[in-house]
Amino acid sequence: MNAPLFNRVALIGIGLIGSSLARALKLHGLAGHIAISTRRAETLATAEKLDLGDSYDLDAASAVKDADLVIICTPMGAYEAVAKSIHDALKPGAIVSDVGSVKASAVRDIAPHLPQGVHLVPGHPIAGTEHSGPEAGYADLFPDHWCILTPGPDTQTEAVDKVAALWKACGAKVEIMTPEHHDRVLGITSHLPHLIAYTIVDTADQLEDDTKKEVIKFSASGFRDFTRIAASDPVMWRDVFLNNRDAVLEILGRFTEDLTAMQRAIRKGDGDALEEVFTRTRAIRRSIIDAKQHVPDIKPDGQDT
Amino acid sequence: MNAPLFNRVALIGIGLIGSSLARALKLHGLAGHIAISTRRAETLATAEKLDLGDSYDLDAASAVKDADLVIICTPMGAYEAVAKSIHDALKPGAIVSDVGSVKASAVRDIAPHLPQGVHLVPGHPIAGTEHSGPEAGYADLFPDHWCILTPGPDTQTEAVDKVAALWKACGAKVEIMTPEHHDRVLGITSHLPHLIAYTIVDTADQLEDDTKKEVIKFSASGFRDFTRIAASDPVMWRDVFLNNRDAVLEILGRFTEDLTAMQRAIRKGDGDALEEVFTRTRAIRRSIIDAKQHVPDIKPDGQDT
Repeated sequence: MNAPLFNRVALIGIGLIGSSLARALKLHGLAGHIAISTRRAETLATAEKLDLGDSYDLDAASAVKDADLVIICTPMGAYEAVAKSIHDALKPGAIVSDVGSVKASAVRDIAPHLPQGVHLVPGHPIAGTEHSGPEAGYADLFPDHWCILTPGPDTQTEAVDKVAALWKACGAKVEIMTPEHHDRVLGITSHLPHLIAYTIVDTADQLEDDTKKEVIKFSASGFRDFTRIAASDPVMWRDVFLNNRDAVLEILGRFTEDLTAMQRAIRKGDGDALEEVFTRTRAIRRSIIDAKQHVPDIKPDGQDT
Repeated sequence: MNAPLFNRVALIGIGLIGSSLARALKLHGLAGHIAISTRRAETLATAEKLDLGDSYDLDAASAVKDADLVIICTPMGAYEAVAKSIHDALKPGAIVSDVGSVKASAVRDIAPHLPQGVHLVPGHPIAGTEHSGPEAGYADLFPDHWCILTPGPDTQTEAVDKVAALWKACGAKVEIMTPEHHDRVLGITSHLPHLIAYTIVDTADQLEDDTKKEVIKFSASGFRDFTRIAASDPVMWRDVFLNNRDAVLEILGRFTEDLTAMQRAIRKGDGDALEEVFTRTRAIRRSIIDAKQHVPDIKPDGQDT
């Protein structure tokens, strides 16, 4: 086997993504040593029981000592505290990255607390499941998925290339863009859909009990897909909306405008307007399938009516 | 093999559901003769090429002649015209049913045009895919899915039992309720989610071209699931919203209230309110899985973030 890409990789936070990454690093022999750190002793014990790494520390600073690569995998709300806590322990030339769903705020919360000579290469693997925690991860989470990197204009190319190489070795496709552009695109493709799914499931949750029972019993696709999305990790998603507020509010504004127009069309019985929109939207589905975007192989009942 | 449940079954309309039903009737030997009628000569020719039935008529009246069971499988917008056109040809004691997604309007459009002695047993198999047309159907569409029947209080029990027996023989689970209750429940579990999916995909469709390309390229789950839902048959869904207007507008009103509250929480940076909702919504997902509702086996990437 070739020499590992990094001698020591420190993973701060070991939830779904962190634990999947640990498994992938091990599977592909990408790290000479995997140091795992997480705040909760119980989670750390689970990670050790699952044999996800080579060393385990409740103290992030100890984990990052001598690390060539540090990947922050905590909820984004903890980024600033984590960055401050590892500042003194980071070795010169070390690379710091993350896996958060919002990138501008990642730069905002981490960059100011890194010492000179440490390279920040924020990342976002667009992959996951509705399950959370170290047990939920698996080495095969990343193949065929995009991992977006958002380094600054002056970031050392070699550092960016090494992080890109790591994700490619895990099977991911890598794209580089600005944090702001990432946040706008993901605000549309992921954040708004999650907000809407959470909301509609909550709307159903507030129905009278008998109707609610029926809704659960006859849960047809549309809604059933939404419940899966709305089962995602609450803390992670809280942080997504707190940190990508402007992009989400902007696209949410456009969405509510469009929804109001649909509401009016229904109220007025304007079938032509409805049919026109419903016909237009078919094209985007085709584009996505043509773009060979990894589409889940959903059983036919995935589209109950 | 036992004697078929019906000597002659007429299917008016042969799209996804009609053609799936034709295949299932044949597979399980439920009809001595399957008469297929549809408005478009081209579609009828396709049905014949696929060998879906035993006889093929552009004229619905000819198809229903001597039929013991007539199932209207056209878009709901055609129900009244179909009912009028078959009135004189229906044999005494015949059963008329349908497969539409809205039941109160089905009764409204069909019942007044049926002769005395003909039994109306409206039905809605909660099954389908985002694909349309006779080629899209398959005999195995109904197993493990609910088929809801909404007969009137005075409908002959024997007629209801025979329609229920047919759907059970196709593998479906049968439930009986009032049309109004059906429309309210489906308005929440299916119609509103489809309206929202159509809307968000249309919102994305109206983005500037470069962003749109990126949205398609990086289409993460939430959104990707929505595009599948929003690829459903435009005419069928136009008719759903035209015919279930009140129930849809009522639940849409609740949804927009809740969405506005979420918007406010995001704008105010109220993380506690967001986390509370996101935590609550997890429970419904569990209830649905516990209710053994047939959940599509979505690959882990079905929940990208």
